[in-house]
Amino acid sequence: MMGTSTQVQPLLINYKTLEEFKRFKEYGIQELTMLEDLQGNIVENNSESPFFGIYIGNALVARMSLYRVSAKYDHYFEPPQDYLELWKLEVLKDYQGQGYGKQLVDFAKSFELPIKTNPRVNSHNFWERMGFQKATYKVERDLGENPLLWLPQGVEEQNDKEE
Amino acid sequence: MMGTSTQVQPLLINYKTLEEFKRFKEYGIQELTMLEDLQGNIVENNSESPFFGIYIGNALVARMSLYRVSAKYDHYFEPPQDYLELWKLEVLKDYQGQGYGKQLVDFAKSFELPIKTNPRVNSHNFWERMGFQKATYKVERDLGENPLLWLPQGVEEQNDKEE
Repeated sequence: MMGTSTQVQPLLINYKTLEEFKRFKEYGIQELTMLEDLQGNIVENNSESPFFGIYIGNALVARMSLYRVSAKYDHYFEPPQDYLELWKLEVLKDYQGQGYGKQLVDFAKSFELPIKTNPRVNSHNFWERMGFQKATYKVERDLGENPLLWLPQGVEEQNDKEE
Repeated sequence: MMGTSTQVQPLLINYKTLEEFKRFKEYGIQELTMLEDLQGNIVENNSESPFFGIYIGNALVARMSLYRVSAKYDHYFEPPQDYLELWKLEVLKDYQGQGYGKQLVDFAKSFELPIKTNPRVNSHNFWERMGFQKATYKVERDLGENPLLWLPQGVEEQNDKEE
């Protein structure tokens, strides 16, 4: 460990973070919007973001986004309840295979809420190891998604196949 | 053209189609579910699917999914209205650059409804050429998506930034 911190921490919106985000493959409209909002003074420097990450020394090596979805929009879990949407989980290539992905997922699980994610197809093995299961695909709800769910004790998948 | 048909056609769920789907990169839980439903006699052979495609001779070379979302779930367009969600637009590598992607998008536009898609980040140039524009990113609505919109005449983006 050599004294480096590998805690999961919330990421603040600032130019350094946004520059580091460019190293991640899943850089998209979300990040571009954060940059524009910062440049246009629509948000303050060091505003909160939905991102959490792991630093090694000064460098961001892994990140994810987390958002708490309200029970009234819950179409996945039984009983319906607040749940976490997790996206853009990514570990930079040179740091893969060292447990940082698991560390981020464990952090998300620590809120003790159900979790939904919509991973890239080729990461299903990882999500299975993390205890996630495929949701029953419903075209009108899931459209182009590949939803995977993590169910804490006492929570089941909603099973009304028809809607 | 040599007599081959390059019309866009609705794709029916059968073993031949589902086998052809495996050649597309964006093969996921949606297709696996269609296969399981067919194997388990939950759907009949040649049931309708949300997919449309282009054949050259006997081979499926391009496809997309389209779903009509009801106005009551419209959080993108002003006035709120039925719109089309478009996903998994993909042309097989050997057939790219020949206008099949545009042909599929033009087919979607022919319904004269607004269209929303959530493309892979590296296809934004294509979508811009097709007349799509970035939606204003809203974390609580868009989460991990990169929404792009096509607005027919008289339709605007919903502009209530706060919700």
